[in-house]
Amino acid sequence: MSGDPIQESFKTLHDLKAIFSDHVALAAMDPGREVYRVRWWAPVERGTEGGLWWGVTVLQPGKVGDEYFMTHGHFHANRSRAEYYGTVSGNGMLLQMNPDRSTWAEVMAAGSLHYVRGENAHRIANTGNSPLVVWACWPSDAGYDYAPIAERGFGARLVESDGRPVLLEGN
Amino acid sequence: MSGDPIQESFKTLHDLKAIFSDHVALAAMDPGREVYRVRWWAPVERGTEGGLWWGVTVLQPGKVGDEYFMTHGHFHANRSRAEYYGTVSGNGMLLQMNPDRSTWAEVMAAGSLHYVRGENAHRIANTGNSPLVVWACWPSDAGYDYAPIAERGFGARLVESDGRPVLLEGN
Repeated sequence: MSGDPIQESFKTLHDLKAIFSDHVALAAMDPGREVYRVRWWAPVERGTEGGLWWGVTVLQPGKVGDEYFMTHGHFHANRSRAEYYGTVSGNGMLLQMNPDRSTWAEVMAAGSLHYVRGENAHRIANTGNSPLVVWACWPSDAGYDYAPIAERGFGARLVESDGRPVLLEGN
Repeated sequence: MSGDPIQESFKTLHDLKAIFSDHVALAAMDPGREVYRVRWWAPVERGTEGGLWWGVTVLQPGKVGDEYFMTHGHFHANRSRAEYYGTVSGNGMLLQMNPDRSTWAEVMAAGSLHYVRGENAHRIANTGNSPLVVWACWPSDAGYDYAPIAERGFGARLVESDGRPVLLEGN
């Protein structure tokens, strides 16, 4: 990988305050607390057709109220561009939402492999007690569209109920 | 992965007889001996723009004369379509050849990650004593172009010399 650009992104509770439901619980937490970081390899420039990027996300364990720590989530700007996720370690869920806002969760555990169709929004949540480490591979011309998630979230939230993850319909 | 098509390919020494250099050594070997198998997940149809496929190759250890067991190797029919390789277990080399037939080898060991630019031919060779297990991710509209390799091979061969892998220029 030497010589090729490695990029990094780092998100705190402050950065993600808009996506969690329980604002009272959030206000009592350290806004500088790390939620996740992404480190990715971009061997070709953003927007290159046919190129691929590859990254690793480390998502910390935690909850805001009863809602699990999660990534912001996004659609791809180019809605035809798919993505693979694979779980390295930890336990969590991959949330996918299709264009009709139907939302479902796939169990992530070491070795699990997940396909995200180009038209689906995607986010991951950590339902365990250790960091959730996940790799992803996506086209370098996929782009990102965060706005629909920032405005309306997903069609369901992943919360802990009686010690288990439960997907609750509605935002 | 349930419900999505899994495809498989299986190659013996007989299937690969054209790619090895030492025909005398090959004639003394069992033509039905397994060299490699590939099992891949095709969640979208071949030719789908923006889709991705994901596969695992298990390449057996062995040599034909002093040349390591290897995959056939190919270009992508669409020369803009890139690919990632990652090593799960075993030891080997990823051979890449650019359009000018310049050929190089990258060391594959557990955890190594490799980018194949769209215009480069690629093959893997097992330089160890156990199966080389490798995953790959590539666009579902990459396609395959085997003919240039079948006709001229790569620009170099990977052989064992004094117990070590050495890349020899020329086909």
